[in-house]
Amino acid sequence: MKFVTAIIHNEPFVGLLHEEKIIDIHKAEQVIFEMTSFPNTLVECVALGDKFVQNVKQIVDKLKDADRVESYVYARSDVTILAPITRPAKNIFCVGKNYREHAIEMGTEEDIPKHVMLFSKAPTTVIGHEQEIDPHSHITTELDYEGELAIVIGKKGKRIGEAEAMDYVFGYTIVNDITARNLQAQHKQFLLGKSLDTSCPIGPYLVHKSAISNPYDLTIKTKVNDEIRQDGHTKDMIFSIEHIISTISQGTTLEPGDIIATGTPAGVGKGFKPPKFLQPGDVIEIEVEGIGTLRNTVSG
Amino acid sequence: MKFVTAIIHNEPFVGLLHEEKIIDIHKAEQVIFEMTSFPNTLVECVALGDKFVQNVKQIVDKLKDADRVESYVYARSDVTILAPITRPAKNIFCVGKNYREHAIEMGTEEDIPKHVMLFSKAPTTVIGHEQEIDPHSHITTELDYEGELAIVIGKKGKRIGEAEAMDYVFGYTIVNDITARNLQAQHKQFLLGKSLDTSCPIGPYLVHKSAISNPYDLTIKTKVNDEIRQDGHTKDMIFSIEHIISTISQGTTLEPGDIIATGTPAGVGKGFKPPKFLQPGDVIEIEVEGIGTLRNTVSG
Repeated sequence: MKFVTAIIHNEPFVGLLHEEKIIDIHKAEQVIFEMTSFPNTLVECVALGDKFVQNVKQIVDKLKDADRVESYVYARSDVTILAPITRPAKNIFCVGKNYREHAIEMGTEEDIPKHVMLFSKAPTTVIGHEQEIDPHSHITTELDYEGELAIVIGKKGKRIGEAEAMDYVFGYTIVNDITARNLQAQHKQFLLGKSLDTSCPIGPYLVHKSAISNPYDLTIKTKVNDEIRQDGHTKDMIFSIEHIISTISQGTTLEPGDIIATGTPAGVGKGFKPPKFLQPGDVIEIEVEGIGTLRNTVSG
Repeated sequence: MKFVTAIIHNEPFVGLLHEEKIIDIHKAEQVIFEMTSFPNTLVECVALGDKFVQNVKQIVDKLKDADRVESYVYARSDVTILAPITRPAKNIFCVGKNYREHAIEMGTEEDIPKHVMLFSKAPTTVIGHEQEIDPHSHITTELDYEGELAIVIGKKGKRIGEAEAMDYVFGYTIVNDITARNLQAQHKQFLLGKSLDTSCPIGPYLVHKSAISNPYDLTIKTKVNDEIRQDGHTKDMIFSIEHIISTISQGTTLEPGDIIATGTPAGVGKGFKPPKFLQPGDVIEIEVEGIGTLRNTVSG
């Protein structure tokens, strides 16, 4: 199941991608079951956990014979897709240097981390699929992309063991961890260089974990203006999703809707000689196998 | 004016410290003016800006001759004070190494930053005055205190110049930036070592900026079990509040309720030889001149 937060007729809704259409699950439930069990936002739906997924399944099962589908089944082109979680309730957790070759391209073998490296991006950075990235030309000429598989937490938890960590994952999405390299370097800690407004495109879909049989068997490809820059694979993560969740939660409570970007493979702009930083007008597409393609343009 | 978020009879309310009493400003307005202009939470009041402060002033002016004061004026000992903002809408911004002598005690003169160093603490870290700090003994034996002056943003802004930065400040509070030194070092980026649950005591008061004529003329004292550990002064900040606000907001929108901890002076536990880390039962008191005293105990 691929969920979206989207807008039609100026109204945001929680949608499901189904046979290339977007279904307004709230309206579908009203028409088909004459009831509403879904809250208004996807993050609140996520917090309902399995119950939410089961109720959506029941809707999908009834769709073929359902009436009045025109009132809740939309063409993909008729809706505007937003970030699945438009305004996270805390900064996005990000794992740094979680792919060996990326750690090396950012420095040397010395930069391969021995412990999970964690930093954050402010919630004000979040934009959706097809929304424009501000180049922030007044403060950086070194804007860079980082294509990443991200997880969304489905259940509140603390001191989570690795063996049970996947129970706390609701699903997967894609994050473009846009970074101003000059600010990242100047300010030592990464927060500022990672927190420029519009520097966290997320989406387009939040894919329920049941759709991904093995999160370590996914290709991650980033293209800039159709040129392949990153051609990575999640099997190459240094620290597993289970290890990341367990490590954070040993002292920090994780909550439904928390987003954890799991790190980027080699091929970021800074890794090229000379570097290939983003320019106004550049189109960045990040494709994670089984999850979708997140596309954004740097505004001109 | 010193504002609090507090609880009485199991109900949270927005309060004002006035002549050693706590006034429920919402109820006071109802009784005195037979109207309610205040939202339910202090962060929403902060977002109203000057209008909020003016309305509170009108209440204070009427208090002497007011009726039924027993219904909205409480003894300080009858209420439980929470953090002024109990659940920030994003991570707390923190400035690292903003006092020269502290930078040196954490390393060498090389550690004195040339640019503002910014990291964050998750909102799940926040506790109030007198609430207990979890020692997290299963993951650290190097828990440390950091007494800091913090500012609370009152107005949304971006690309704020230093000359106008103070217009965006609502007021001041105290933050204890509790840090697990082993995790801070191991994970390189500070987020994890700074984000343990209960590691961000804030308060007790949010002091309106009108009460502080010069934020660079305040002593900051931290005591552990009555032993003075930090005896600093805000005149020694490397980067001014105006510079910090301007730097962040060049690319990152600041919003009402955002909390920025401005860094800690010398005298943290790690700076002693041998280090003086926190132990269960330790009582930490941070006194910032004109702001108040924030006291918390490490649970046993």
